Amino acid sequence: MELPLLDDMHVHLRQGAMLRHVVPLTRAGGVGRCVVMPNTDPPLTSVDSVRHYKRELASCSTDIDFLMTLYLCPALESMDMAAAREAGVVGIKCYPQGVTTNSDWGVADLQRYDALFAEMEREGIVLQLHGEVPRTPASDVCILNAEERFLPEVVRIHKSFPRLRVVLEHVTTAAAVACVKELGEKVGATITAHHLDLIVDDWAGRNHNYCKPVAKYPHDRDALREVVSSAHPRFFLGSDSAPHPRSAKEGACGCAGVFTAPLLLPYLADTFERIGMLDRLHDFGCVFGRTFYALPAPQGRVILEKTEQIVPDEYDGVVPYRAGERIGWRIV
Amino acid sequence: MELPLLDDMHVHLRQGAMLRHVVPLTRAGGVGRCVVMPNTDPPLTSVDSVRHYKRELASCSTDIDFLMTLYLCPALESMDMAAAREAGVVGIKCYPQGVTTNSDWGVADLQRYDALFAEMEREGIVLQLHGEVPRTPASDVCILNAEERFLPEVVRIHKSFPRLRVVLEHVTTAAAVACVKELGEKVGATITAHHLDLIVDDWAGRNHNYCKPVAKYPHDRDALREVVSSAHPRFFLGSDSAPHPRSAKEGACGCAGVFTAPLLLPYLADTFERIGMLDRLHDFGCVFGRTFYALPAPQGRVILEKTEQIVPDEYDGVVPYRAGERIGWRIV
Repeated sequence: MELPLLDDMHVHLRQGAMLRHVVPLTRAGGVGRCVVMPNTDPPLTSVDSVRHYKRELASCSTDIDFLMTLYLCPALESMDMAAAREAGVVGIKCYPQGVTTNSDWGVADLQRYDALFAEMEREGIVLQLHGEVPRTPASDVCILNAEERFLPEVVRIHKSFPRLRVVLEHVTTAAAVACVKELGEKVGATITAHHLDLIVDDWAGRNHNYCKPVAKYPHDRDALREVVSSAHPRFFLGSDSAPHPRSAKEGACGCAGVFTAPLLLPYLADTFERIGMLDRLHDFGCVFGRTFYALPAPQGRVILEKTEQIVPDEYDGVVPYRAGERIGWRIV
Repeated sequence: MELPLLDDMHVHLRQGAMLRHVVPLTRAGGVGRCVVMPNTDPPLTSVDSVRHYKRELASCSTDIDFLMTLYLCPALESMDMAAAREAGVVGIKCYPQGVTTNSDWGVADLQRYDALFAEMEREGIVLQLHGEVPRTPASDVCILNAEERFLPEVVRIHKSFPRLRVVLEHVTTAAAVACVKELGEKVGATITAHHLDLIVDDWAGRNHNYCKPVAKYPHDRDALREVVSSAHPRFFLGSDSAPHPRSAKEGACGCAGVFTAPLLLPYLADTFERIGMLDRLHDFGCVFGRTFYALPAPQGRVILEKTEQIVPDEYDGVVPYRAGERIGWRIV
């Protein structure tokens, strides 16, 4: 099976030694272009920091087209969006405060950024939403309903800025799928490889399957599978591949994040075949994302062979998704 | 504060070296009498095995009154229930197949045991239910709704055997609390110390807080707190303390179970005080359980002092609940 290289519209490439380790593995997993998340430490909040980070990424792989993002915060309110675009920024990522890795700097009140959203709408910068409300002591909010409770904010932003492109990232619930479908052509969603596989039972006591947002009910997973199977053009691949050292996953406390980058395309082929929707893989992984982002068709192609392989136990200290399991496909 | 020793109506005391380690710690945690779970390996399915196990427990502590249980399985259908009672059996525990530690031998079809339930009703043996339906591939069942979906079975058993005492063990949901309240005086429920504290967010990526049934939504925890705070006499302490070696909790996969035995009374005092219901501790931990089980008042007493202590990191390789945290009470 021959495919274009994947467009992964949501990936964490980290910093330092982890970055140098992960970037080549990302290419090996079949990715030719990716949207790089800005929740580094410190986060990417200036055009200079984006340029510097992009240079660092490019020094580890000349075969990936890195599409850059900024971390939504007050510093962005006075930024020249045209200059940001010039530096490779395609989107601004919004993290509500405290909901995932390095989100301490996140947003408590989204409405304060309405002027910035208007500017992004004019300049064609995408708003990427980590769609979970933060937990507050007296409310019933928890990791199971935080995504659904965020949806009214997506609706509000879309109604206020109807030409702003908005991506609800890594959707995990039937409610989020229904909301995005209803909002029309400027609102899209990314879906990870692992959320097409997992439910809550799969990460309970199994930290390598634990990520934020968490995988939820079987009917939620079914809704993700159905919308991909229906070839809905506003639902596309964003792996949210998020490497952590083994020690940060397997102690008394495990960090949130599933590492899918090194075998992203084989994982997807395995899952899509198992669900009986292998014919949807091309559009989901290679067409719908770039169409939403208005990017050109990619050059490179990849050949995927139906040959069993066993997922390695680790990649130099980082445990991949489904470590030790058999998957039915291999990149040649 | 002086209290009678606790009646812990649900505890796992394990086997071999772990048993010898855990039994004295259970006494140190303030427990004077406990209902011992039968999911040993192999499970307790004969009167002889119960006698043998009780002797082993008694050899590790003469200060605890061990109330014994049998593991519901076909072997019990021909057993003399009066002889079982003679050997110290107060209840028969039903595990649906595959829902928790050592439940592979569990029950697939509860109705087949209706004749046994009738016999238990006559002999005054309590039916103890692990109230979760097993996961089946095509259903929407998962660890979040498995308890609620089991409730119709509780209702059916109660309607069929209205004088059979039934305990729904370690309830975790508002739905289970409402169901038990509605069913009247022959149906009770145990509540653990940790389920009065935890919600789903607390065990996500934190294996030492992971147990079955899992802690759920904030509104579920609130329902547990409210029913205890209301001094409802059919909701009583069953700690479900379930020790595992550290290595079985902290690897890539963690076993289900929270270890509360060594500080059970201080944990409870800390939680009850924090919630503002310290005046409910005595009845919840020392009266309601024995009343439901029709047991005599205990002899021993324990003095609890309002002095801060830090929970040890481990007890000889077993990590306790809230390890390293401060709690406000200490047994003198």
